[in-house]
This record gives sequence, structure tokens and C-alpha cells, in this order.
Amino acid sequence: MNTFGQLLRVTTFGESHGPAIGCVIDGCPPGIAIAPEDFVRDLERRATGRSRHTSQRHEADEIEILSGVYEGVTTGTPIALLIRNTDARSKDYSAIAQQFRPGHADYSYWQKYGIRDPRGGGRSSARETTMRVAAGVIAKKWLADRHGVRVQGWLAQLGDVTPKGFDAGVIDTNPFFWPDAAQVIELEAFMDALRKSGDSVGAKVIVEATGVPPGWGEPVYGKLSAELGAAMLSINAVKGVEIGDGFDVVAQHGSTHRDLMRPEGFESNHAGGILGGISTGQPVRASIAFKPTSSLRLPAPTLDVQGNEVDIVTTGRHDPCVGIRATPICEAMMALVLMDQALRHRAQCGDVGEVSPRIP
Amino acid sequence: MNTFGQLLRVTTFGESHGPAIGCVIDGCPPGIAIAPEDFVRDLERRATGRSRHTSQRHEADEIEILSGVYEGVTTGTPIALLIRNTDARSKDYSAIAQQFRPGHADYSYWQKYGIRDPRGGGRSSARETTMRVAAGVIAKKWLADRHGVRVQGWLAQLGDVTPKGFDAGVIDTNPFFWPDAAQVIELEAFMDALRKSGDSVGAKVIVEATGVPPGWGEPVYGKLSAELGAAMLSINAVKGVEIGDGFDVVAQHGSTHRDLMRPEGFESNHAGGILGGISTGQPVRASIAFKPTSSLRLPAPTLDVQGNEVDIVTTGRHDPCVGIRATPICEAMMALVLMDQALRHRAQCGDVGEVSPRIP
Amino acid sequence: MNTFGQLLRVTTFGESHGPAIGCVIDGCPPGIAIAPEDFVRDLERRATGRSRHTSQRHEADEIEILSGVYEGVTTGTPIALLIRNTDARSKDYSAIAQQFRPGHADYSYWQKYGIRDPRGGGRSSARETTMRVAAGVIAKKWLADRHGVRVQGWLAQLGDVTPKGFDAGVIDTNPFFWPDAAQVIELEAFMDALRKSGDSVGAKVIVEATGVPPGWGEPVYGKLSAELGAAMLSINAVKGVEIGDGFDVVAQHGSTHRDLMRPEGFESNHAGGILGGISTGQPVRASIAFKPTSSLRLPAPTLDVQGNEVDIVTTGRHDPCVGIRATPICEAMMALVLMDQALRHRAQCGDVGEVSPRIP
Amino acid sequence: MNTFGQLLRVTTFGESHGPAIGCVIDGCPPGIAIAPEDFVRDLERRATGRSRHTSQRHEADEIEILSGVYEGVTTGTPIALLIRNTDARSKDYSAIAQQFRPGHADYSYWQKYGIRDPRGGGRSSARETTMRVAAGVIAKKWLADRHGVRVQGWLAQLGDVTPKGFDAGVIDTNPFFWPDAAQVIELEAFMDALRKSGDSVGAKVIVEATGVPPGWGEPVYGKLSAELGAAMLSINAVKGVEIGDGFDVVAQHGSTHRDLMRPEGFESNHAGGILGGISTGQPVRASIAFKPTSSLRLPAPTLDVQGNEVDIVTTGRHDPCVGIRATPICEAMMALVLMDQALRHRAQCGDVGEVSPRIP
Repeated sequence: MNTFGQLLRVTTFGESHGPAIGCVIDGCPPGIAIAPEDFVRDLERRATGRSRHTSQRHEADEIEILSGVYEGVTTGTPIALLIRNTDARSKDYSAIAQQFRPGHADYSYWQKYGIRDPRGGGRSSARETTMRVAAGVIAKKWLADRHGVRVQGWLAQLGDVTPKGFDAGVIDTNPFFWPDAAQVIELEAFMDALRKSGDSVGAKVIVEATGVPPGWGEPVYGKLSAELGAAMLSINAVKGVEIGDGFDVVAQHGSTHRDLMRPEGFESNHAGGILGGISTGQPVRASIAFKPTSSLRLPAPTLDVQGNEVDIVTTGRHDPCVGIRATPICEAMMALVLMDQALRHRAQCGDVGEVSPRIP
Repeated sequence: MNTFGQLLRVTTFGESHGPAIGCVIDGCPPGIAIAPEDFVRDLERRATGRSRHTSQRHEADEIEILSGVYEGVTTGTPIALLIRNTDARSKDYSAIAQQFRPGHADYSYWQKYGIRDPRGGGRSSARETTMRVAAGVIAKKWLADRHGVRVQGWLAQLGDVTPKGFDAGVIDTNPFFWPDAAQVIELEAFMDALRKSGDSVGAKVIVEATGVPPGWGEPVYGKLSAELGAAMLSINAVKGVEIGDGFDVVAQHGSTHRDLMRPEGFESNHAGGILGGISTGQPVRASIAFKPTSSLRLPAPTLDVQGNEVDIVTTGRHDPCVGIRATPICEAMMALVLMDQALRHRAQCGDVGEVSPRIP
Repeated sequence: MNTFGQLLRVTTFGESHGPAIGCVIDGCPPGIAIAPEDFVRDLERRATGRSRHTSQRHEADEIEILSGVYEGVTTGTPIALLIRNTDARSKDYSAIAQQFRPGHADYSYWQKYGIRDPRGGGRSSARETTMRVAAGVIAKKWLADRHGVRVQGWLAQLGDVTPKGFDAGVIDTNPFFWPDAAQVIELEAFMDALRKSGDSVGAKVIVEATGVPPGWGEPVYGKLSAELGAAMLSINAVKGVEIGDGFDVVAQHGSTHRDLMRPEGFESNHAGGILGGISTGQPVRASIAFKPTSSLRLPAPTLDVQGNEVDIVTTGRHDPCVGIRATPICEAMMALVLMDQALRHRAQCGDVGEVSPRIP
Repeated sequence: MNTFGQLLRVTTFGESHGPAIGCVIDGCPPGIAIAPEDFVRDLERRATGRSRHTSQRHEADEIEILSGVYEGVTTGTPIALLIRNTDARSKDYSAIAQQFRPGHADYSYWQKYGIRDPRGGGRSSARETTMRVAAGVIAKKWLADRHGVRVQGWLAQLGDVTPKGFDAGVIDTNPFFWPDAAQVIELEAFMDALRKSGDSVGAKVIVEATGVPPGWGEPVYGKLSAELGAAMLSINAVKGVEIGDGFDVVAQHGSTHRDLMRPEGFESNHAGGILGGISTGQPVRASIAFKPTSSLRLPAPTLDVQGNEVDIVTTGRHDPCVGIRATPICEAMMALVLMDQALRHRAQCGDVGEVSPRIP
């Protein structure tokens, strides 16, 4: 299942070290101005090799628009985007073609299909997320232009380090998408030590969408929360998703959790902007847990395809913390979910803003 | 979107206080022996009014099989299940028909549709989950008979109380699905005090499936983890989902997290039985966070449909902790996801067990 | 696959002689006034036993609305409709439980599933179409109220008899849905003779929708024409579908076929109101071929489940021409396709009527 | 909706005169040997400019495999195919950018989207069918290798000319896919005269699949007949589809139509290999009606986007009979439908050949 979304359908293809990766975006409304330059910023934010703290693979990531856009405007027909793979060093992986890297999809893919493309993880590589970010650019644009919705993510935890302060303005001024500029030096030292150790750590990303009107999301199985969960858990290395207070609700009392409504607005947002699976008009917030990458320079025992025990060392170029570059990916997935739900809402209930009173 | 699953499609319908609730299960293989008695146990486990710690609404929950079963065996045609609502006290809710209960779906439904059935929460009521449990019974049966898969859930946290020990054998011997019998008295005291206070608490449920063969789950957007996430987050009151170590991975190092493979089997299961979205053959484990119900006897300010501030007190019959009865619901959702993925795997790759060597 | 439609999803269930048949209609907009009485007319038009020219099975066909309607208005949640089977004489079929009726689905179902419900054809019975008609009633109402679309069908051929004249006003005044009242006596004599002979004949139905705005239908695989084709060919006994001139186009010249556009409107409608899979604003017209039923009183050789040759005579109650009662079914399927496409169009392109100039 | 199929999902993209056309094939089983050469034959059969009787546009139609194939074998991940457009003369179309060509999708697209790519018909061009043929090559290969199914189409009528004899062996030896070699000279004269006249004619294609096992196809809405109907009606210029005897059944008697079963096999195949929407094991046969192309050198009045009447003459390069090249397209669509149904059957019922006795 390489298609995401019900009405805004994004189908991605491509392997890490194949000739190209790409996607087809179907169901996009006509009349949206789209140019190759629109993709540059978010692809840059996600790209590897932009700082010493991420994989040193250098991909040009130049988007070619193959269809669906005429004279700079979407026509309503499928939008195909293509990126050629330019810096794919397959030799890095030849050694492990017959081995299962621990913590990777090698074994499960091989058990499922009886065959796998071992070059850079093939289809299971995070390289695929480039196309999520590209598709997300269009969704972000539509959400902002038509509904004034803004989607912003940041790194909320790196290993055991958490932000001391929060300033949305600094998130994109450092390579960590960190909301507290004062901690950046500390983080760089943390990452340098980590890289030297040959080990990796996990991270937590928070994504928030503001300006979402009430009424988006479909009961019962198409809940906005359920689709955000699926969207985030479909990203490589994600092991957990929270909406609003998430697991903190376990120890909460109802008298604390329930967000009271006043004529001037909600008093709190423990729900993360979603009640009964439908948006309330408050900011929609999700937290995502990224596991530490399993591609380490530290040797480890594993098995080969014959079931023999062998020692493995992952060379190749990898991120000591995949979570760092994941922020724009999480933003993209939230934008795609919101736009899809917006279209589904329009189909069944017409455009938003028809019911009142609306709570501020 | 009231349908769940791609190949095993469960469509549910019905409101809390309408004439009936039901579901249609499409895509089910032929030849499965199904009788009304098969549904009794799990419906009992989920049902209200079975102990003083859950809502006192008493529903007979008698399943009628309307189609798809001939002479006690499934025929491959859609299986329709129906339960008449017998104990629906609508008068309990008449008072709040014009008010938005804080923390409930009242406001979001009303903003989406411009109309809502206020009786017992209408469609947003957890009454709907009865049908998930019923459908799950068929999935559990097929998984056990054909693949030897067993799905078991338990309550892993109630408010701030956590299990001291773990004995799978006692889970179904107490009304809390609690794995440590020695703590049951403590839990009863906890719940009695809570009920007296008129407040509510959250809970955490863990569900585990054993015997799942490697290879189930579809990259990239149909990951087993992603669909489990959507399944759990589609359950009422769920605010978070974890696969394997979940949010603990944030502070973990890769050298700790990666589960090493040995000829005799995996050394650990931090991944929760899923790598790259595909099962590894290890137990598949998910944790689910349930918020405290917002239906409290404690009065609170809220708004009516005209936007005026009013005081509200939720009378009616409610659970002080909705998470307690959620265990069989989580089991059902995991069973439905696994059976759906098993069918999808068979479609693309043929029956399981074709690739070797298989790690124990 | 017992669900029809992408956004307006109709899932039907039930066997001919099971306890009940029903459907769940998901994705229906809120705010539509629906009452049980609304279904009476079309269910009557489709029903058996209303004239001596159709099967003598007498079904009350009383619709019970189980969900999705509150105080007489749709709420946007799934609408479940149920009809209990009251006149199911299973004994009629016991004799042929082990035999394959020629021209019926007995053999193909048995080969697919390895099991079948032989009572009245089980799931393959045209009894299922009752629910299509019921769902169609809601679609017709929405199309008429919101868009002024009217869907009308008639019998365009019965065996080798074709209408001499056309008067839409008389279609519903005779049991044949025949547009020329003067031929009704002839048709009754034709059917009486046919019934005496124990044989059956085929029929052709034409359905036309007027008032359809231009722009409905999705390229490339969701063409309005393609979905009408699937809708009609999903009806029991249908062997052919035409849009507009249908098979007459094979011998036509382009200079004849192309419908010229003038400021005052199209000069002709060879296209049947669809170009490139999208409606043009002209009447949408489809012709449907119904085969002669294979349930005859004339004995014939066939096989039993052991592969032995046996003689078979279909007793039971059957239509000498299933096409006669098919007119309201074809109307319903066209209405369901149009409403689904209208919702999909609204999702992607917003409500209709935004582009001009519109050709009359 | 630019995706076709439920389990074997083909998503196509691209405009007639855009940079490229392509498709993504998802859900394809692993282990199928695929090379670029495999596509040559059917792309040649469909291609323009191969004889003077088709459009003189010369496209190299060189397939590039972008993903899903590793070392010459499918891996189970999405297969992306790309063809660059090399001979796109946009200038031919500049004149009619502001006009609606009669009988074309210009007006309906423009009404739907409010914008259109006029170059060569943009997305509505038959250029898209190149990708159907390419995807069909993989389906044909899988069907033949795994199930021994063969799909063969031919031209059954050209204008008012019908085949006098039938010899499957000659179908691919003439540019008309005509089954009677003796008539080829007659057809060439017919086409030469037609081309001189500047007019066009319609055609009828028949496609037949042999070796299809009984049991493929899904009741009720996923009938094999219904999906063949949708598949064929989704092809440009198709106005009608028949299964088996098609519209001839209207005047037939049941005693003639019902195909009798004998231990040695069926006595006839009026049903076209499908009963109750499920294959019977007999050859599956469909007839497809293609309208005469509306791109003529004969001038005609039409409207421009302002609604003014103007005269139009279609220059550019066009087929005097689009049906001629449609034969491989119809084959491809039937192959895609059959493979999709085969996978769906395997999912629900396991592999075929499990039920006996099988009728020869």
C-alpha cells in the first residue's frame, strides 16, 4: 500500500539507490499556483548533508514536475513529481546484501517478499520521505491560502535533552528545529560526542496546526486523530504517537482533562484540538516518538540469509539521530491529513463556516 | 467513514439510544464456523453493568446473525450482526440536548453536521464499540484456527496505579483485566473512592498478539504499526498509541534498542514485533492511552447552542474509568488489523510460511 | 465486495431466504428529510407479486430505519435500513440444493466459495436489489432537491417488441414501465403466452437523468460513463450497457456523431450527455440489456455437486421477464452514481455553477 | 480518480504534450521477471504511426523502469514506468486553445475544472492508454505464467464491415487486428477512402480470455462483469460494453440462453464465461464499441470559451478510426481486471483449484 489519503491521494515510488524516486498526487483541486521553487525550502529542511549532524549523503533533490500543472497552475489532473537519485553509493551496501541488519526492515521484507533490494535499504529507506515532504508543500500551500491553516513542527526532545524555553521564531534558525536557541551549543556538543561514540539516540517531534476550523475529521474510523496516528506511524522509525496530552491522560482526572468552553473560547487544550475525532477549532497537536537509528558503527552479531550467525558493522552514511530531520516530514504528514479531511468535509457537508456560533 | 479495513471490511452503524446497533463484515473467508454463542464471552467482557465499577446501563447485547452464515458456517457473503438497544433511557439526556458537554464530541459534531443526536452521545457513544468486539470475535477465531495467533490485552495502568506483578492467568478473573490478583482489593478501593468523588481517571491498556508469522504488514502507508495506530486511535477516548517501547525510545541509544538476531531467536523485543512496518515473528505489542471520561457528576460551566454560558452536570450512567472495559475492544481492533493484513499478504505473496529460514 | 460508491457508500447484506436484507448508507450529507413512507413508491414499483406478469412472491418490503436519522432528518452518520424476509418458501428450493441450475450462479459461487446458500439463490438472488432501490430513493431526493436532477427509466424493448410511441406520462401507469399505452394489451397477451410456455425473454431498459450540470464525473478511471457501466452490470442478469448511441456508433461517421454546440445549446445528444467521462449538461442516458431468466419450468439436463448428470426443473416463483421490474433498479443505480460523483466533484472543485458561460 | 484496481492498483499520470507520461503499479506480487524489452511488442501494437491508417504522430515509446524491479525481478514494491514525450507538436493546437472541439472533452473538462491543458487534449488524450498497455504487459505475463490464462483481442467490426471468417493466427499479421486475412485489402481501400473524405468511423473490438479458472469475480458490486464494464468504458471513445451475447439477450428466450452443463463441459457460452458476476471456467468474452473520433478535417461550427460561435477545423494528427489501435488496450484492461480479481480471490478464498469437481 504505497498510496496515502482518501481524496487527496499521494502515491510514492522509488528505492533509495534506484534511478529515481517520485510521487503522484491525485485529487488535488485545480487552480493552485505551483512552481519547482516552491519545493526548495522544505526539501532543504529535510535534506541530508546540510549539517555535520545528519547523514553526509548529498542529494540535489531537484524536483521535476511531470504532469498536472499547466502554465504554473494545477489543472485537477494527477501531479507527478520526480527526483533523480544522484549520490547513491551502492558499493557501501554490497557487503550486507546477504545479511540482516539488526533493527532494520531487512529481515521482515525478506520474509514477506522472499526478495529485497539491499541497496541503502531499498524501499524501506527514509529516502521515500522526500516525496512526502514534496507533496506536503502543496497541501501546506492550499491550507494556508484557502483556510489560513499553518503547520509548524519542532524537536521537543533529543535523547534526554528537552527544551528549556520556547520561541517559535528560532525553530528554523538552527539545524535541530529546536525552540530554544540558547541550547543549540549544548546540542551540538551532544551530537558530536554521540557521533564519535558510533551510537545513536531517539527524539520526539511535536507538530501543531493552527487555524484549523471546527468540523474536520470523520467519525468513526476516519477520525482526524486516527488518521494522524496512521500518518505519523507510517514514517520510518516512529514508535509512538500522541494527540494532545497523550499518555499523560492516563494519570489525569476528568475534572482536569476536560477543556471548558467559555464564550471567549476554550480554557485549555488537553484534547489537542480534537474531540470525538473531529477538530474543535483549537490548535491540533501531535507528538511523535522516533527510535534511535539501528545503523551504527558499533559491530553486532546478526544472521545471514542462510541463518548463520555473522558479525555486522553498518558503514554507509547515516544519521546519528533520524528524528532531527523528521520535523518537516511530520509537518508534511499533518498537512496531507488535514487537506484530505478538508476535502472530505467539503464533499459531505459543504464548505466550512456554515454553522454558528463559532467559539473564538 | 464508518468502515474499517481494506479486505476484511467492517462497517458499523447505530446510535447509543437508537433502535439498534449493528455491523456488516465483508470479505470474510468462507468455511468459518460461527454461532451466536461465540460472541457471548467477549461481549460480556466489554459490557457495562457487570460490576459496580462500570456504567450501570444494562444491555442484553444479544447478537442476531442476519446474513452470511448458512448452517453455522460463513459463506463468504457479508455477515450482518444486529443488537437491539433495550436499556436506553433517553430522558437522562433531554436536559443537555441544547448544551455542549465539555470534553465530549457534542460541539465538534454540531460544528461538522449542524445537527446531532444528543441521546447518550448518539453516534459518538462508546456503544459503537460493541460491534468492534463482535467483529473481533470472528477475527480472533480465524487467526487462532488458521495461524495459531492469540491476542491478549490487559490493563497496564489505572490512574497512577501500575501492576506489581504479571500473571496472564488472572487477567480475566477480575473486573479490571489486571495482571496482578494481589492488587485487586486496592483497585476496588481506588474505584470506590473515585466514584464517590464524582470524578474519573484515565488508564493504559496493553495488547499483545503471539504467534504472528513474519511478513504481515504492508509498506509504506499500510504498515502494520500504522494500521494498529489508526485502529486504536479510532476507539473512543484514546489519546496515544505506542508500538513496542513507544516513547521510551526517545531517550534510548541504538545499541540498546536494536533487537539482535541469533540462530535461536531474537534477544529482545524493543520493536514490539514490527520492523519497517512488517511483522518479525515476535509478539506484536501495542500500548493505548485512554483519557478520563468527561461525563462527571461535578458541575462545570459550558456553552449552549446559542453560545450562552450555562452550568452543566452530567447525570446519566457513566464509567468512572472507560479504560477498564476497553481491553476487549483493543484486542478486537488488533485482531481485525492482523486478519486484514493476513488476507492482504496472502493476496500479494501467497500463504505464509513460504520463505525460510524462519527465526524461532 | 458488497459496497458500492466512493463517497456515498452503500453496503448491502442479506440472502433471499435469510432472516432479513438490509443496507448501510455511509457518507450521506446531513439535513435530508427522510421518512419510511419515502421508500414505499419505488419499492412498490420494484416489488414482485404486484401483477400477474412478475414473480408471485409477496414481500411486505417494510423498511425500518435503524440509524442515521434523528427527528426525521439525516445526521451525517450511517443510515441503516432493514427489511425482514416474510414470504420465503425455502421448501421450494430444497430439491435443487445439490444441483447447479443452468444459467444461474450456483456453479460459480460453489466453485469460488466451496459452499453456498441454495435457498432462492441465496446472496445471488435479485432480492438484494430491493436495497439498491431503497438507497436510490435517498439519492433521488437529494439530486432533485439540491440540483433539480430527475432520473426516469422505462422499458425500451421486451423480447422483440419495441415501443411505437413515447409518452413519459404513461410509463408509471402500466406494469411494464412502457412508454406507449396503446401497446399494453399487446404486451399482456405476449407475457401471458410466454408464461404459459414456461419460457422467459430478455428486455432492454433505458434510464435518463435530466438536469445534470456539466462537470460531474472523474477522469480517467472514475469516468461517469465507466461508473454507470459498473453500476448497471452489477445488477443481476445484465449483459450489456450503452451510453448514448452505444453500439450504433460503430457504423457511424464522426461528422454525424459529434454533437455540435451552438449558443442556444447542443444540436444533438449522440454522446448521451457525457464527453471524456464528464457530464456536458445534456441528459445522461444509458441503455441496459437484461438476459432472460434461467429459472424455467422447462426441464433441462445439468450436473449435481458430484458432477453427475441430472434433470432439473425450476419450480419456485420466478419472473418470466426480470427486465420488467428492473426499471426502478436501473434508476436507483444511476441516481447513486450521480450523487456519488456530485459529492466527489464538490470535494475537488467546490459546488457546481462556478464556471461560465454555461450552454443552455 | 486516476487509479485503477483494488489490489493491483495502476495509477497513471501525464498529458499528451507534457514532458512525460507514466504509471505506478502497486500490489504486484514479487518474483516476476520483467525487462524493458517485455513492453516493446504491445506498445508497438498500440503505437501510432505504424501504418498509414493511424495517426502519424511518431513516439519512441521507450519505457524506463524507475522502481520495483531489482536485478530483473519484481520485489513487491511499486513499479514505476516512465515514457518521455518526444514528438509533441503543441503548435498544432494553439489555434483551438480557446475553442471547444465538438465531440471532445474540451467543454466538459473546462466546466469541471475551470482550466484545461489544450495541447493535444491534455489529460483526456488517448496517449494515456500507452500506460494501460504497459501495465497490462505485466498482468498478461503473470496470468499466463501462473494460471495459463491467455488474453486475445481482435477487431470485430470496422464501420459497417464485419469479418467473413475467423483465424486467430492472422489477427496480429495485419494493421487492423482483423481475423480474416482475405479482407485486408478491402479494409485498406476502405480506410484510404475514409481518410481522403476527412471523416472517421467507429469500430467494435472483441476481447477473450481463455484458461480463466472458475471462481474469479466478486459479488455483488465487484462482479467480474461489472469491473470489465468499468474498465472498458474508462477507455477513450468507448460508448458500449457487452458480456457474452450482450444486447442479443434482449430478444432471446431463456431456453436458448441458459448454457447447459454436461460432464464433458458446457454446451454453449451465451453467458461469456460469467454467471452471477463470477467466472465459470469458460472463455471470458467482452465486446466494446468505439465511437468515430471527433477530430475531423471537416469544418464545423462550435463555441469559444466566451460562448461565441466560431468555425473549427481540427488539424493535428489523428486516427480516422481510433478503434483500430484499441485492440491491445482492451486486452490490457481485461488482463488487469483478471489479475486484480485473481489476487482478491486468493485473499478471501485461497488459491484456485481447491474445489472439485471442475467441469472441463
